[in-house]
Amino acid sequence: MKILITSGGTTEKIDSVRSITNHSTGRLGKMIAETFLEKGFDVTLVTTAAALKPQQHEHLAIYQVTTVASLAETLEPLVKSHDVLIHSMAVSDYTPVYMTDLDSVKEVSDLDSLLTKTNTESKISSQSDYQVLFLKKTPKLISLVKKWNPAITLIGFKLLVNVEKEQLLSVAKESLLKNEAAYILANDLSQINEQQHHAYLVSSDDCIELKTKAEIAKLICRKIIDND
Amino acid sequence: MKILITSGGTTEKIDSVRSITNHSTGRLGKMIAETFLEKGFDVTLVTTAAALKPQQHEHLAIYQVTTVASLAETLEPLVKSHDVLIHSMAVSDYTPVYMTDLDSVKEVSDLDSLLTKTNTESKISSQSDYQVLFLKKTPKLISLVKKWNPAITLIGFKLLVNVEKEQLLSVAKESLLKNEAAYILANDLSQINEQQHHAYLVSSDDCIELKTKAEIAKLICRKIIDND
Repeated sequence: MKILITSGGTTEKIDSVRSITNHSTGRLGKMIAETFLEKGFDVTLVTTAAALKPQQHEHLAIYQVTTVASLAETLEPLVKSHDVLIHSMAVSDYTPVYMTDLDSVKEVSDLDSLLTKTNTESKISSQSDYQVLFLKKTPKLISLVKKWNPAITLIGFKLLVNVEKEQLLSVAKESLLKNEAAYILANDLSQINEQQHHAYLVSSDDCIELKTKAEIAKLICRKIIDND
Repeated sequence: MKILITSGGTTEKIDSVRSITNHSTGRLGKMIAETFLEKGFDVTLVTTAAALKPQQHEHLAIYQVTTVASLAETLEPLVKSHDVLIHSMAVSDYTPVYMTDLDSVKEVSDLDSLLTKTNTESKISSQSDYQVLFLKKTPKLISLVKKWNPAITLIGFKLLVNVEKEQLLSVAKESLLKNEAAYILANDLSQINEQQHHAYLVSSDDCIELKTKAEIAKLICRKIIDND
């Protein structure tokens, strides 16, 4: 059984010196990878330059990506050649389209006309007091995983911030169905810190509460191995 | 003589999971710090979590910052207690004010009304196809340095991308005058890679061309020591 894991957070460029990053230390993905390596599995980790990574290991292959586009390109062939995908990466929802100063935005009669523009300058000028950045939605890669490989076991991750348990679980269940995932690891950023990582592993018939990264890594590994 | 160096790039939050970062590895600042440490100077390095840092050293103090605001707070007392500031950090020009979906922007009659809004949600929703992010200019900290400490020797950095030499030097001279700097290190991102770091050290009466990070670090150190 070949295990594919994503970790870290993608980065989308605004121009050649600025970009938008989705935060993720990669710590949980690293721990999940290590847990599978300890059990003797072959692990492929798709991650980012800034993310924490496991030490070199003969059964570990690491691929580095930056943007959502590079993630998609790297992930598609890997999804087709693996049995399990544990998709813990924080993937950017939006990517920059065009940035300009506020006065230029005020001058246009139709805002949609700015959505087809691109910045030709390498570094956007920093003269004006206000800038406006237009962003467009990125493709939801998690929704493509079962299309790329219908046989793969998919474990998705859902991170919300400061929500009630009911909302968190409801969003997780929705993602479970929509993406045909076996499990969704649902967590709330306000309940994650150095000591704890509060989360729920949600499946169609179960919901298990977890309190630390080590517990999460162990349970995901056991669920995959036992197929229970 | 106490040397203060900044390195790395600041990060401004959009919400609790996304932020805008100015890229900088911190490699040049690290090398400048090491060059001064080798000569026996006391060095204070103000840098970021992601930046490369020198090894621990009895004459090195490191402060970590994230945003422009935290940089300002950290820098002001340090500028007052040091003799030289080498300000190589990539400081964010803009910081997010408010992010909302494109349709909401279209509905307002006066765009200025959005500049006083703030996002109350912890994680901005990713439902709509387009989002619009309003950003405002951050204070230019380099212009405050000589106000904080008129006696400090200031070395500023100017990074442009893909410009002619004349434009680069003209922008550097402008910065030299405006910020009362002793030198501006002017460089072009398109001429920086693993092997080379093409730059000009610009003063009121001189302009020296440099080709590597090591050359830059050595020359800045010599200029400060010799005061030549």
